[in-house]
Amino acid sequence: MEYKKEIQRLLIDLKTNYLSSVSIDLVIFGFHDGQLKVLLLRWKGTDNWCLPGGRIRHEENLEAAAYRSLQGRTGLSEIFLQQFHTFGDVIRYKNFSVEETMAMLDLPIEVSKEIISRDVSVGYYALVEFANVTPTPDFFTEECRWWDVDQIPLLLFDHNDMITFALKTLRRQLSYQPIGYSLLPDKFTMPDLQQLYETILGQTLDRRNFQKRMLGYGILERLDERKTGGAHKAPYLYRFDTEKYEKALKDEILFVG
Amino acid sequence: MEYKKEIQRLLIDLKTNYLSSVSIDLVIFGFHDGQLKVLLLRWKGTDNWCLPGGRIRHEENLEAAAYRSLQGRTGLSEIFLQQFHTFGDVIRYKNFSVEETMAMLDLPIEVSKEIISRDVSVGYYALVEFANVTPTPDFFTEECRWWDVDQIPLLLFDHNDMITFALKTLRRQLSYQPIGYSLLPDKFTMPDLQQLYETILGQTLDRRNFQKRMLGYGILERLDERKTGGAHKAPYLYRFDTEKYEKALKDEILFVG
Repeated sequence: MEYKKEIQRLLIDLKTNYLSSVSIDLVIFGFHDGQLKVLLLRWKGTDNWCLPGGRIRHEENLEAAAYRSLQGRTGLSEIFLQQFHTFGDVIRYKNFSVEETMAMLDLPIEVSKEIISRDVSVGYYALVEFANVTPTPDFFTEECRWWDVDQIPLLLFDHNDMITFALKTLRRQLSYQPIGYSLLPDKFTMPDLQQLYETILGQTLDRRNFQKRMLGYGILERLDERKTGGAHKAPYLYRFDTEKYEKALKDEILFVG
Repeated sequence: MEYKKEIQRLLIDLKTNYLSSVSIDLVIFGFHDGQLKVLLLRWKGTDNWCLPGGRIRHEENLEAAAYRSLQGRTGLSEIFLQQFHTFGDVIRYKNFSVEETMAMLDLPIEVSKEIISRDVSVGYYALVEFANVTPTPDFFTEECRWWDVDQIPLLLFDHNDMITFALKTLRRQLSYQPIGYSLLPDKFTMPDLQQLYETILGQTLDRRNFQKRMLGYGILERLDERKTGGAHKAPYLYRFDTEKYEKALKDEILFVG
């Protein structure tokens, strides 16, 4: 009863206060120790998984709506969201039909109709160190879980495609922006940094070329310390030069002839 | 009289057949002989310039709507459009107020209200050889003109920001995808290719590094011909290896360690 009333309230809220035809979906990647995962939500009372998402209020900027949706659906904040693509096919039910999707949502028919009506959806992604964040399920969600990017189940709507596209964008980003600041400890070794890149790319990289390229960016500061507790030839520790890192983020490491 | 009737017809069409809250804007860059320009439309009966744009029909994919809008507003087709960003601020009247914008559109008040209502706008860009295409004005447009990217006037809405963002994306693209296939003649010299990159980047590049990097991509085929009619040491001619070029476009030249 309480659930039904709450659902009715949400439906009226949705129709009154939000832009029609536009929604937001969020692909939150989590990195930790050589693993790359993505945050999925299990729909209340079902076994069906999807990305967190939301809608845009009439008096709200798109980007603000993305952050509010993130907070509302997962409890997460202080994450840097980046827009990557807007999905606008008429049919966005890739894995399941409209009827199947409506059944899978397990909601009153007028609510699921509203949820599955044609939307153009703006995709945002982020990459976090997943040991540092604890997602919390919202009203519509039974469970938040980090899934390995290689083991994503069949998702509602076109959410598998969204993850594929976001991952492509994240990999692309490595060719024009530095990465690692919030993902590695303050001091790290070159192998730590290489592992991060290899995890994102899903492939191994040549050690010497990697080091040469990284040092060439001029964003790393080599410390007079080596990693302790290691083998005889312990690797040097590095940290990011925050100012140069920020500049490279902003200017982007463009085509330098 | 005819104009007013046509406007009324368009307004009804807009309200009936198109998604509300979402629109499309198109940044068409034109390259030719060391110049980079952008295609702007002068609004009918005014001196005000803006980007070509459009809206999405209920039964139409977003991408199809972008191509239909391009054709409808400029007469252009066979241009490869790429999505670059979706603009969703509540206030998208950067250069002029709502009232000024409405006045500048010089349309019946109900039509300009419809046109300036809050939209989330999906931006697409393209880069063409502008000597190869001839834009044609549509019903709303007095004139289509190529403007030098360094001399863009104050535009309607947030269209200056859109051009800035699209140009950043185009420059970024140089770091992960090859460019030039439809922009250079079938056979070209290394200086021709370098001029294209320099024009897009708006900066000069080191000749030797440029050549090294380009050859490293493995997408160029050096011909046994030199450019004729030149100086004593005429430069070699190259052409793109179509298959390898297509592969690099698709795979993207990612971080190669």
